[in-house]
Amino acid sequence: MSTSFTMIGGEGPNSYREHSKYQGALLEAAKQMINETISTKLDINFTSNLVNIADFGCSSGPNTFAAVQMIIDAVEHKYRQDIEFQVFFNDSPNNDFNTLFKTLPPARKYLATGVPGSFFGRVLPRSSFHVGICSYSLHFVSKIPKEIKDRDSPVWNKDIQCTGYSKEVAKLYFDQYKIDLGSFLSARAQELVPGGLMLLLGSCLPNGVKMSETVPGMMVDIIGSSLNEIAKQNTLS
Amino acid sequence: MSTSFTMIGGEGPNSYREHSKYQGALLEAAKQMINETISTKLDINFTSNLVNIADFGCSSGPNTFAAVQMIIDAVEHKYRQDIEFQVFFNDSPNNDFNTLFKTLPPARKYLATGVPGSFFGRVLPRSSFHVGICSYSLHFVSKIPKEIKDRDSPVWNKDIQCTGYSKEVAKLYFDQYKIDLGSFLSARAQELVPGGLMLLLGSCLPNGVKMSETVPGMMVDIIGSSLNEIAKQNTLS
Repeated sequence: MSTSFTMIGGEGPNSYREHSKYQGALLEAAKQMINETISTKLDINFTSNLVNIADFGCSSGPNTFAAVQMIIDAVEHKYRQDIEFQVFFNDSPNNDFNTLFKTLPPARKYLATGVPGSFFGRVLPRSSFHVGICSYSLHFVSKIPKEIKDRDSPVWNKDIQCTGYSKEVAKLYFDQYKIDLGSFLSARAQELVPGGLMLLLGSCLPNGVKMSETVPGMMVDIIGSSLNEIAKQNTLS
Repeated sequence: MSTSFTMIGGEGPNSYREHSKYQGALLEAAKQMINETISTKLDINFTSNLVNIADFGCSSGPNTFAAVQMIIDAVEHKYRQDIEFQVFFNDSPNNDFNTLFKTLPPARKYLATGVPGSFFGRVLPRSSFHVGICSYSLHFVSKIPKEIKDRDSPVWNKDIQCTGYSKEVAKLYFDQYKIDLGSFLSARAQELVPGGLMLLLGSCLPNGVKMSETVPGMMVDIIGSSLNEIAKQNTLS
């Protein structure tokens, strides 16, 4: 289980904290849908007044706090009773939890907790969280298939960009992703309280549409080609 | 609420991790007593198979893992059933949780969680932990009484050591300590599951014995006097 896929921590100019406005805007765009889902689908059987929220792949930016607050507001709006909230912020042990903890909203009305561990495995007790969110994290794979990294392999992915890769490379990534998604869902199924909700947010493509046919894909390809061209001139190596 | 009283993080030569062998040895010395207390006093009413352990003032050294493992072994020995353990490692948000998370025992049989927050207030949900430990942490006060730090105050603590301080200085510390201990116990009383245990470990002095009459106290006084002497000669300032 690899734990090397983490965002850049801290609060510096290259940090994820400073480069996650796009993800934040998409979260804001999903707000209405999250509210409706919690309003119509969440079914908490209160034995105590505790509601546990979990953010899987939280990183250390401000979006994680916005997502959690959105969920808390929706749950409070639905149940209108005295609720104690505990929030589990999960990410790889390499994530910058120190920054996450130091930047927690001072006026928050929840107990905060950091959970180090890969979300491709169990990180919380059985039947322990009521609402989970995984926002722009589940597009990662737990590891790069080894053939893709091997220069002597026929499926070595020599391109520096990934949108125009070969069918064989795509298949290897897809196979890995199927395994990872299965692991993720299986772990969450055990951790989720019956009647709870797991929200998955991310950018998708309709079936049959290739990344290279989209505007972001074309942009990445153009930048990639330019860099390849410069590399051939030995300006870059 | 001050959060500045944390141990030196990381794994470097000055880190708490490298300078906590004394605390580790004292924990080992308390092992028998911890085992007996759990064996005779702990009374868990199992509604699920989850047992929550909490370490208040965990810092980032290896002792915290040793303490937790000691408790888990004793609980397993007592109940001899399939138990899922979740451990809450609590310390100030300034604590080095990144190092704590990266040095978690790889073969641990518990789900690990970091809880940032001063243990002089609530950090966990109501009725949420079964066994808590606070080992060599509760001798800290939440803040230094302001008169003690004020050079213009009659109770300014001008001595660089603390064992020989005046009655007035001692009283101010004692008053602060009473407030802090009350806050600590009140918070834990709410968080502890009925039938659970809160273990408090630390070095104490019998009533009437002054720190300056003990061997460590005498040593600190001698070092302090020597430093004062050097400072008077303007070698140190």
